[in-house]
Amino acid sequence: MSNVNLAIIGQGGRGFGLMRLIMEMEDVNIVGVCDVYQDRVDRAVTTLKEAGKPAPVATQNYHELLALSNVDAVLIATSWQTHMRIAIDSMKAGKYVASEVGGACSLDEVWELVQTSRETKMPCMMLENCCYGREELALLNMVKQNVFGELIHTRCGYEHDLREEVAKGHINRHYRLDNYMHRNGDVYPTHGSVPMGKMLNINRGNRFVSLTSMASKSRGLNEWIKDNLPDVDYLQNYPFALGDVVTTIVKCAHGETLVMTHDTTLPRPYSRGGLVQGTKGIWMEENYSIYLDGISPEHKWEPFAPYLEKYEHPLWKWYQQEGIRGGHGGMDYLTLRAFLESVQAQCDTPIDVYDFAVHAALTPLSEQSVALGGMPQAFPDFTNGAWLVRPAERKWKYSLTEIWDGE
Amino acid sequence: MSNVNLAIIGQGGRGFGLMRLIMEMEDVNIVGVCDVYQDRVDRAVTTLKEAGKPAPVATQNYHELLALSNVDAVLIATSWQTHMRIAIDSMKAGKYVASEVGGACSLDEVWELVQTSRETKMPCMMLENCCYGREELALLNMVKQNVFGELIHTRCGYEHDLREEVAKGHINRHYRLDNYMHRNGDVYPTHGSVPMGKMLNINRGNRFVSLTSMASKSRGLNEWIKDNLPDVDYLQNYPFALGDVVTTIVKCAHGETLVMTHDTTLPRPYSRGGLVQGTKGIWMEENYSIYLDGISPEHKWEPFAPYLEKYEHPLWKWYQQEGIRGGHGGMDYLTLRAFLESVQAQCDTPIDVYDFAVHAALTPLSEQSVALGGMPQAFPDFTNGAWLVRPAERKWKYSLTEIWDGE
Repeated sequence: MSNVNLAIIGQGGRGFGLMRLIMEMEDVNIVGVCDVYQDRVDRAVTTLKEAGKPAPVATQNYHELLALSNVDAVLIATSWQTHMRIAIDSMKAGKYVASEVGGACSLDEVWELVQTSRETKMPCMMLENCCYGREELALLNMVKQNVFGELIHTRCGYEHDLREEVAKGHINRHYRLDNYMHRNGDVYPTHGSVPMGKMLNINRGNRFVSLTSMASKSRGLNEWIKDNLPDVDYLQNYPFALGDVVTTIVKCAHGETLVMTHDTTLPRPYSRGGLVQGTKGIWMEENYSIYLDGISPEHKWEPFAPYLEKYEHPLWKWYQQEGIRGGHGGMDYLTLRAFLESVQAQCDTPIDVYDFAVHAALTPLSEQSVALGGMPQAFPDFTNGAWLVRPAERKWKYSLTEIWDGE
Repeated sequence: MSNVNLAIIGQGGRGFGLMRLIMEMEDVNIVGVCDVYQDRVDRAVTTLKEAGKPAPVATQNYHELLALSNVDAVLIATSWQTHMRIAIDSMKAGKYVASEVGGACSLDEVWELVQTSRETKMPCMMLENCCYGREELALLNMVKQNVFGELIHTRCGYEHDLREEVAKGHINRHYRLDNYMHRNGDVYPTHGSVPMGKMLNINRGNRFVSLTSMASKSRGLNEWIKDNLPDVDYLQNYPFALGDVVTTIVKCAHGETLVMTHDTTLPRPYSRGGLVQGTKGIWMEENYSIYLDGISPEHKWEPFAPYLEKYEHPLWKWYQQEGIRGGHGGMDYLTLRAFLESVQAQCDTPIDVYDFAVHAALTPLSEQSVALGGMPQAFPDFTNGAWLVRPAERKWKYSLTEIWDGE
């Protein structure tokens, strides 16, 4: 297959942004666009037209796109709570699936996602762009080269002041508002958990076995709304369900721990709060530093930058030569290419349906634990035992478990 | 009372160090010393003699010191697992008690500590020196001045590479070795939890209600021992119970969360991993930075140093003028003075028996949670309801809930 015929479902800020990035790719035809809001559908059509592209099928009903036999693949950028349903329907229609990130709503829909992929043999990728971040890939490379020794403990987070974006959901139609009003748990775990999961060999010889989660009280949104949106009556004293800071501890089959923080409704600079710690060293995002036993000066952090260069991942070496493009520091482009080139090669995606499942499951498990006062919750084994013996991923440019050898 | 007659029980590294600091205080007479090892008793006696001090009663049996009618107060610097027993016996003998830090072994002994203090009316202070750290006191001052808004989330830790100290316990007789061999949980929570507890008004209108705790696998000590102590046969493959990193989430009655990390058997620079986060701002130890809503440049951390000066606690202003002395950056001296001046004034100590109880209880509760796979554990209310209405601490130099107004 040379060109990929792609349908894009969801034309909000994210879907529209990804469409504009994909528009520039010569080996992709955008043959369908969809959103529940007609103005967004219209914006997509106009944008493609102005770029001189053929008119796509445009609809508010995604089933119309799934019925098109010329669609090879579907990209889903809808609300969190609709990802699973649309992904399942897309696989049933015989389409490759790429879905934007976010947690699931129930374990049942996660099981259905996995079972549908098994039955239809259609791959299903979570577009977790942070897996292709420069730092994350260099760290993966370092883990594979045993720089940190045996991994023991990791941390990650989504620490991002989104008060304005969330509170203005009544204007910008952002799904976060509904989720923050009604749900309490780590509703957005994957920017940290998927890259860390790759370092921890999750689904290939290791797995998440349990988690416990606790949420703080909720104050940040109400304070911000009182100060900034005094005219939006129904939000003034709305009892938001989501705690300002949700902390989750995940335990792995081989005894590693992963501590996750969701922190999006208090004032703070952005961070993904990363930490990788093993028997030989530690890397920390907060101070952008590293310490390696017997290498770093005793008891002193070293700047990470020289190590980033030393352990630069081959994909990023190549990417820097080719020219970095697209949003989020270039990660989005790599993630899309990983998906699209998997479709072209008719092979599985580097973030596969089992990865999708286990990381999407973090959210309902976290909600359940919070609801039960921090009671530990067991992870289902979505692979039904396959994780014990799954072979390594093929080694190619976009591998996330093997290190590409640069062609 | 002018001079305090003090007995010091425990003459290991810490007890001996504190004794040498106290020796220089003109208003304290060291009238008794005790250790289970005779060589340590001898060292104490010799040291006092060489300093021209009167000979103390010297014994391997602490009950002999408690029987002395001239002893006003007892300082306990023994193994973690003996603090409670000795503190209880000391209060029963009518002595003021100061104990070095560390967690309890059971909730029952914590209850007995509290009940003994109630019955005997003898105060009992945990010598948590970090409460008197310069940064901690400035932060307490900032919290009281509402700089962070309503507190939502805090973090603390004991992140200290102690592999050599622990592993050489068979030589240096350090109690950590026994504890690490047999226990799994946050065995040393107080350097972070007590200062944070003061900011969170624990025992005065707030309390810890529950916690959940998970431990990583244990690898750090074994690797270090193989590399550095190849001749100590019995430790080569000893299955240490203590996980390398233990993470605990504590929930407060008013909905705040406190995340604690115990991390002492992997290579890393020292940190107490502090974080204070409220509706108006955040301070983080890892990058020594602060961010205040509407004050700091948007989305950018500011260095903490200028804020430290601006919000310097009155006690530290005074201390810098008087001259900082003693170990751990001067904190030890202030902590000892807080205790000794409480004895002289015959009033309660700024870290009181309820503080001692709740922070010592963190350890057995953490162990229980780890043993049960992260099952949440409820905190007893050691005040039996008094926390609802307890009056503010008196405002004096060493207050940890009120800000001293500098005389």
